[in-house]
Amino acid sequence: MNNQFQNTIGLVIYPDMFQLDITGPHQVFSLMPNTSVLLLSKSLEPVVSNGGLSILPDTTFDECPQLDVLCVPGGSFGTVQAMENTEVLAFLQKYGNTTKYITAVCTGSLILAAAGLLRGYRAASHWAFREQLELMGAKVSTERVVIDRNRITGGGVTAGIDFALTIAGMLCGEDTAKFIELMLEYNPSPPFGVGSPEKAGAELVQTVKNFGTSLIAASYEASRKAASRVN
Amino acid sequence: MNNQFQNTIGLVIYPDMFQLDITGPHQVFSLMPNTSVLLLSKSLEPVVSNGGLSILPDTTFDECPQLDVLCVPGGSFGTVQAMENTEVLAFLQKYGNTTKYITAVCTGSLILAAAGLLRGYRAASHWAFREQLELMGAKVSTERVVIDRNRITGGGVTAGIDFALTIAGMLCGEDTAKFIELMLEYNPSPPFGVGSPEKAGAELVQTVKNFGTSLIAASYEASRKAASRVN
Repeated sequence: MNNQFQNTIGLVIYPDMFQLDITGPHQVFSLMPNTSVLLLSKSLEPVVSNGGLSILPDTTFDECPQLDVLCVPGGSFGTVQAMENTEVLAFLQKYGNTTKYITAVCTGSLILAAAGLLRGYRAASHWAFREQLELMGAKVSTERVVIDRNRITGGGVTAGIDFALTIAGMLCGEDTAKFIELMLEYNPSPPFGVGSPEKAGAELVQTVKNFGTSLIAASYEASRKAASRVN
Repeated sequence: MNNQFQNTIGLVIYPDMFQLDITGPHQVFSLMPNTSVLLLSKSLEPVVSNGGLSILPDTTFDECPQLDVLCVPGGSFGTVQAMENTEVLAFLQKYGNTTKYITAVCTGSLILAAAGLLRGYRAASHWAFREQLELMGAKVSTERVVIDRNRITGGGVTAGIDFALTIAGMLCGEDTAKFIELMLEYNPSPPFGVGSPEKAGAELVQTVKNFGTSLIAASYEASRKAASRVN
């Protein structure tokens, strides 16, 4: 299956994910030549993202072919559920052994870590969730895209675009990745310039943390439980 | 309908669109308080994007409520078809009269222009398609986000994120938009730094144009035909 493709990339999708974590990379990957991009879920039912956008999976976990890249997005409480979902964890563990690159965007790294796939690896995550990664044996990095051996992880949500262009460069060469960067006119100009905790300042950082208090707490609890399994 | 919401935003989706043109803005808009974000299509059938990602519409053109923001994404040959699709054009013309903000990302501005909605307005588009906008009476701008009265347009694909954060600031205030920018960790770091024609240089620009030759030609032809209708 898929042997006409040089690269097969599997993007896991699940309810309550942040869809931009995966749609950003999908847009980049789908412009790579000879590449098959598959949205993976436990069934073929539509998956409703945190913001209410519904995406159709291409393939089930059970029917997933051999992959070159496996990628997991982050999200809201659905991410916490995925960290404890035996089907998701079993799929990641199975493919974690055979896939060339194991990757995640945003809090997707928490799911990888909960599957035991980041123990001893440097990894990125959304800035508000970094400490939790450490609990599960990862070495947290504040870089926007982190490469450690065959683990590649991106920071929060929009970092997925930088992450995917980096992977495009690794798999298809720098010329192709540059072509995609120009094609997508990726010359960003953030209107407010507050997209990192350092740039935002303490007050705005606290406002976002306050908004996410219950999610951060739930995710911390799941990370603690996962830590006792994977460490 | 939707009167519990302060803002109702309608995102038109159609086959062969570039999904990131609309998923970027959707991610931003869905984090705005008291805001309903609706994906609009002629039917409720899944819409398959250029890269193969399938999205489910929320509402049909016929059942669309009054909108505060109407947004049209760009894409590949499907965009050319949309420029000549009577259902799409009729919908845009109808809502163009009653919607507070008429907006587009990437070559979505060509569709707005083909519906006669950019005549005499400054507007942005994907860099490779700017000249065509002029044919249909728009004044092309190279800015990443262009605001002219109630027309708001973004440049190519990834500009949709800058565009949507700008709109979030206009509708919900700067504090909310900053909150979203930090929440989405929008602190971009393009890996290759070639995301605009100026930064990419002549050779890479020509490579992308060569790749898009037939699309640019088809789109030019549709723009010429539309020009004879709208001017």
